[in-house]
Amino acid sequence: MKEVKVGVVGCGTVGTGVCRILIEKQNLIESRIGASIKLKYAADIDTETDRGIHFDKNVFVKDAFQVVDDPEVDIVVELIGGNTIAKDLMLKAIEKGKHVVTANKALLAEEGKGLFYSASEKGVAIAFEASIGGCIPIVKTIRESLVGNSIKSITGILNGTCNYILTKIEDEGLSFEDALAMAQDNGFAEADPTLDIEGGDTAHKICLLSTLSYGTGVDLSDVYVEGITGITPLDIEFAKEFGYKIKLLAISKAQDTCNAVRVHPAMISYDNPLSSVNGSLNAISVVGDATGEIVLYGYGAGMMPTASAVISDVVDIARDLVSGAMNRLAFSFPPVCTPSVLPINELTTNYYFRFSAADKPGVLSTIAGVLGRYGISIKSVHQKGRKSKGPVPIVMLTHKARERDVRQAISEIDSLDVIDSKTVIIRIESDQEEQE
Amino acid sequence: MKEVKVGVVGCGTVGTGVCRILIEKQNLIESRIGASIKLKYAADIDTETDRGIHFDKNVFVKDAFQVVDDPEVDIVVELIGGNTIAKDLMLKAIEKGKHVVTANKALLAEEGKGLFYSASEKGVAIAFEASIGGCIPIVKTIRESLVGNSIKSITGILNGTCNYILTKIEDEGLSFEDALAMAQDNGFAEADPTLDIEGGDTAHKICLLSTLSYGTGVDLSDVYVEGITGITPLDIEFAKEFGYKIKLLAISKAQDTCNAVRVHPAMISYDNPLSSVNGSLNAISVVGDATGEIVLYGYGAGMMPTASAVISDVVDIARDLVSGAMNRLAFSFPPVCTPSVLPINELTTNYYFRFSAADKPGVLSTIAGVLGRYGISIKSVHQKGRKSKGPVPIVMLTHKARERDVRQAISEIDSLDVIDSKTVIIRIESDQEEQE
Repeated sequence: MKEVKVGVVGCGTVGTGVCRILIEKQNLIESRIGASIKLKYAADIDTETDRGIHFDKNVFVKDAFQVVDDPEVDIVVELIGGNTIAKDLMLKAIEKGKHVVTANKALLAEEGKGLFYSASEKGVAIAFEASIGGCIPIVKTIRESLVGNSIKSITGILNGTCNYILTKIEDEGLSFEDALAMAQDNGFAEADPTLDIEGGDTAHKICLLSTLSYGTGVDLSDVYVEGITGITPLDIEFAKEFGYKIKLLAISKAQDTCNAVRVHPAMISYDNPLSSVNGSLNAISVVGDATGEIVLYGYGAGMMPTASAVISDVVDIARDLVSGAMNRLAFSFPPVCTPSVLPINELTTNYYFRFSAADKPGVLSTIAGVLGRYGISIKSVHQKGRKSKGPVPIVMLTHKARERDVRQAISEIDSLDVIDSKTVIIRIESDQEEQE
Repeated sequence: MKEVKVGVVGCGTVGTGVCRILIEKQNLIESRIGASIKLKYAADIDTETDRGIHFDKNVFVKDAFQVVDDPEVDIVVELIGGNTIAKDLMLKAIEKGKHVVTANKALLAEEGKGLFYSASEKGVAIAFEASIGGCIPIVKTIRESLVGNSIKSITGILNGTCNYILTKIEDEGLSFEDALAMAQDNGFAEADPTLDIEGGDTAHKICLLSTLSYGTGVDLSDVYVEGITGITPLDIEFAKEFGYKIKLLAISKAQDTCNAVRVHPAMISYDNPLSSVNGSLNAISVVGDATGEIVLYGYGAGMMPTASAVISDVVDIARDLVSGAMNRLAFSFPPVCTPSVLPINELTTNYYFRFSAADKPGVLSTIAGVLGRYGISIKSVHQKGRKSKGPVPIVMLTHKARERDVRQAISEIDSLDVIDSKTVIIRIESDQEEQE
């Protein structure tokens, strides 16, 4: 029986899960693919901590480059993360003709162009199913199952930390800060949660998915990114009254001359299948021109779900090696063409505004007057019970408006004396908009 | 550029969609896979009806066997359906060393063993993504994405006709007969809907999925199958009161010594992601031991969604041919082992009973007495407003009970004088049960 040799570098949570599957499921995988996949190395600077795994002799090593240097290793699984040593290691593995499997979305979103180019030159694969949506098979679905489709849009809940926090704010009325602290206590958020809560992680993922879907590069710096730190229980409560949930969405739409790619909190109606995705779960909706909407849903993070996705990539490459396939799934950068990304100012959508205004006569007409001057048409106005003192929240939902006009109008409104604090703006992602 | 030649036999709805994608998306697919896929034939006994497609000269032919006999054809797409000519054609294609793509679940569920054996002998593929769940990539997900998982269970809404009918009964309070007529009028049900509404089509699909998941054969004749013809608006109304929806489910669970595979209407709670799958949509939940639950959702039928799945299989095989892969994805029959399927009598689950009983004192205690004698424990009893005359519905929900006991008890109850008509039995698929 043919044997494929794998080296895992980075034996943290996911790496440990990968090693566990390779060891515990060796016979199962062998029976399924007709070849043997052998864990030749698991490398980590920390070889002291017990991983609860019995490694064969000489498997668990300290030096990641020992793995890359061994000519017997066919596939390097990079699970170190970050973009310093991980990048060097990946480039060296490629140079030595090894295939690479990674979950490193940050590195691929930022440096993918060069890495994929090197891999393509060397005729090796960089596989990255585990980098987006944990165990959800979104890369495979877009690249293989939807290969006969022009992809029209992708909409995803791609960050479990943010979704956990938003669910906690909604279910328990917590403030953002308290919900974040709870996420950290329960292991759903990092000590430094910036990359998650500010939307950066979601942006990395939607860049990769957009590039896959359209066959065109999407520069991370062109993507509008807004995180969830400004979301309050009050806005979630208002959203509920209108039949909406607030989710941090990654949205990517193919348009005639450019693609619209953006990350921000958005209101979506209860009818939208993404609205019922709660806690740390992820979900991705893809609209193909032949398939219509497909939604995939599952655990977007965690040891075993992410390890499962890594294993699927390892097995795919093993199947190639064993069957003699060469460059079976080309993933070419630079892309066929690089259309521009729609600047956020050009976006047209529905908006939710929450103004904090003095409770005085004439305030509403002043606000409405400014909006009117910028051509922003109000669909409905909502005001919650008056306080005896201090500002009151005034909520407005708009008809379709252009982001540029919205920003200018709101900036003008926010400078009015009667406005107490910065107006909250949340975009509404409606199904009608999809059909525009 | 390498070229792969495809012959489509059966140019009905799906076949037309396949031809359309192969022609209209030729350049797109070429750019994605680095090879050209050419539609060499579209065969159908009816070459008169306009398909709205411009075929090149000599492409649109009458004789399906001309396609199979042409040594230039690499892949035969069988979309005739049924198990007579389709089987002969498939066997002949295999014998001539051609790969086969099909959407024919009936043929594969009934004759798969022999067909896969022949294909394996000849080193060719039989690909069947389009046979289950339309465009939902369930075959690929189970076979490739979950390759590192032991599959614990599959639960699916796999028949769009049934789901459409159940949704209509629920939303509009129609009788089964009226909802079926509406489905037929709107093109969601065949003139002879037996295979759909009696659960046979769903059974074909869950047999294939179980075989794929467990690597063990599941005989269609071992699968318990119950359709939706007995579902009434009254039962759907009761279900709603208890927080349940009624769906025709295909359920397959890996158990220690055998697999439980069954098809029947079931009540599922609103928390279950399958409960919000309405109309002609399909959805499949798969639980892997590493991934936990993954849910895939999309159009389970229709011209373009099904054609999209066919194309994904065609492209997969084309990628193999172009990259020089041999037997990359083996699908071996006979299976590794054939455990028995759990007889339905051994099932343990929660039940909903609706008795039509005379409105007399003592009836309830008589029914409860019989249930008690069979060890069936009642969780709650519900009775709707009394009629002045005639039988009244008495609904009971049970704790876990064994199907054999239930059948015997209900048969005894149904023979009582006070019982007006056959008792309605609907199984409740609870999430707790999953964890047993």
